[in-house]
Amino acid sequence: MNNPQIHPVVLCGGSGTRLWPRSRVAKPKPFLPLVGDGTLFEATLARCPAAAGFAVPIVVTGAAHLAHVEAQWPAGVGGETIVEPCARNTAAAIALAALRLPEDAVMLVCPSDHHIADAAAFQAAAHAAAELAAEGWLVSFGIEATAPETGFGYLRRGEPIGALGFKVAQFVEKPDLERARQFLADGGYAWNGGIFAFRAGTFLDELAAHRPEIAAMARKAVAGGHSQGARFHPDPEAFAAINSESVDYAVMENTARAAMVPAAMGWSDIGNWDALLAARPRDASGNAVKGPAELVDCRNVLIESDGPRVSAIGLEDVVIVVDGNEVLVTTRAGAQLVGKLDGAANQ
Amino acid sequence: MNNPQIHPVVLCGGSGTRLWPRSRVAKPKPFLPLVGDGTLFEATLARCPAAAGFAVPIVVTGAAHLAHVEAQWPAGVGGETIVEPCARNTAAAIALAALRLPEDAVMLVCPSDHHIADAAAFQAAAHAAAELAAEGWLVSFGIEATAPETGFGYLRRGEPIGALGFKVAQFVEKPDLERARQFLADGGYAWNGGIFAFRAGTFLDELAAHRPEIAAMARKAVAGGHSQGARFHPDPEAFAAINSESVDYAVMENTARAAMVPAAMGWSDIGNWDALLAARPRDASGNAVKGPAELVDCRNVLIESDGPRVSAIGLEDVVIVVDGNEVLVTTRAGAQLVGKLDGAANQ
Repeated sequence: MNNPQIHPVVLCGGSGTRLWPRSRVAKPKPFLPLVGDGTLFEATLARCPAAAGFAVPIVVTGAAHLAHVEAQWPAGVGGETIVEPCARNTAAAIALAALRLPEDAVMLVCPSDHHIADAAAFQAAAHAAAELAAEGWLVSFGIEATAPETGFGYLRRGEPIGALGFKVAQFVEKPDLERARQFLADGGYAWNGGIFAFRAGTFLDELAAHRPEIAAMARKAVAGGHSQGARFHPDPEAFAAINSESVDYAVMENTARAAMVPAAMGWSDIGNWDALLAARPRDASGNAVKGPAELVDCRNVLIESDGPRVSAIGLEDVVIVVDGNEVLVTTRAGAQLVGKLDGAANQ
Repeated sequence: MNNPQIHPVVLCGGSGTRLWPRSRVAKPKPFLPLVGDGTLFEATLARCPAAAGFAVPIVVTGAAHLAHVEAQWPAGVGGETIVEPCARNTAAAIALAALRLPEDAVMLVCPSDHHIADAAAFQAAAHAAAELAAEGWLVSFGIEATAPETGFGYLRRGEPIGALGFKVAQFVEKPDLERARQFLADGGYAWNGGIFAFRAGTFLDELAAHRPEIAAMARKAVAGGHSQGARFHPDPEAFAAINSESVDYAVMENTARAAMVPAAMGWSDIGNWDALLAARPRDASGNAVKGPAELVDCRNVLIESDGPRVSAIGLEDVVIVVDGNEVLVTTRAGAQLVGKLDGAANQ
């Protein structure tokens, strides 16, 4: 079956302490305009237009973020929001979406807080993944590794499946730096970015095979749920009773039908302020500025201000963020520690 | 004559762009609590107590800063404020003060925006200077040079005058770095910090000899002035007609009776944020913090915030100042450029 229609399933969760103080519990990363004019959530929907073969989206989010989702949902797009009464990780979220779709529907699970510079490459990879999914594979995007990152899991490439992709030989947990360097040099490893394609029915079958209790309870939560306009509310008691597991751990690492498609699409999970600087358009000195600012003798400096003017002199590889009553100044290398600051940890 | 009573003459002027954004046109450096609990102006008065042989102070200030002067004047100290209707530099300011004192009074001219760590050393130098002043010398404090500073004028030491001080062999303009290094290595040069002692009558005689038009017009401004409580207002027209010249240029560099007393007293003109960091008490990592802040892996960092919390990671030799709608982040080396920022220049 060629070119099946693709049902985007957009996951909106997370607390986003790593981009504090811009990202806060009350307004996390997906809903912020971090790269370009739109928010990451808006960009995620915009990457999946009807014209490129995508069906209306299903968005899975928590009640706390429903207002952001609905405020940023483009007019006329249609689709459904599944409102989780509590957080139960990705296996549960994807199971709910699968149960709201026909068995033969091909789902494309998309995190809502990533940046993808090349939308056409994303769409091409999505269609390759969808073709494999229609054949019964559970497909991960194998994101081209461009640096020895220690913050991601990796996929080891196995045998080819036709011209579209490969079997996954192994799911590899986050490596240390030495192993990450080996993976990069090897060339046979890709980042696991949490983007997946499968038929709804295939996913539910595999979930039932490997995590029958999650599958059964998700089915109960949907059967006992109700719609309210474009919102779908699962049964709160049944949903709360679902085990909290990631889809990787519950399904992808266990299935015999794990596949991957290569995806070189300018991807970033914007995992910290340093990653955001790398994803941003920059001036000739490597600086990226949002908000009122004056820079003198600065290189590779990121400035984000929600109001006050930032005047910077002589800085190199520094991030400055002004948000309300918080000011963050960190080296790019220190950006990975932001989530552990008092302000980020005790919001 | 031994131990003459010393009349402090405190000069409160300047716009203070170099400590922007904390220092602003409306509230310049003398009136800010930059080192310790009090302001620099308060500390200047506190260094000249009656118990150490000082008379009540005369403060010379502009109308724009009169409110700050009066608000920060300690209760019960007494003294007079000379209110300048416009700025006419130090020769005019000192002439007004001299004309408000008896001819034989020994004046000690003190800038109000310097930090002096060792008040006892200051008082000892002041009494040495006062003894020379009582003998008819015009005495500069020769501040011990501890670094090859290019931002100050220098005094070259001449022959000794008894045990108290030396003749000034030469007033040297701000040197370049190479000459400043030579001065430091030579040991015979001291910084000219703008602290002077002389008899009122001696000063007026020398002013009349070298700048007769300034002397005459200052005399006219005082003769036509009036007191209002502790304030003295010179005649505004006569004052405005005075030539604007520094006391160094008008008098000290021309007199044949220029003397200096050595002063090693932990002096700083707090000429920029880097100098302020050097003058501040610091923690074991060299950091000095005022306001809410969290520091992680930081060394030699100065943080000043008037409210927002500042979180800093991985920084070294950096200054962060948050004041109202302005945030300054500069390297210590870049601190000398602060006055040229848009924000500082266009207040």
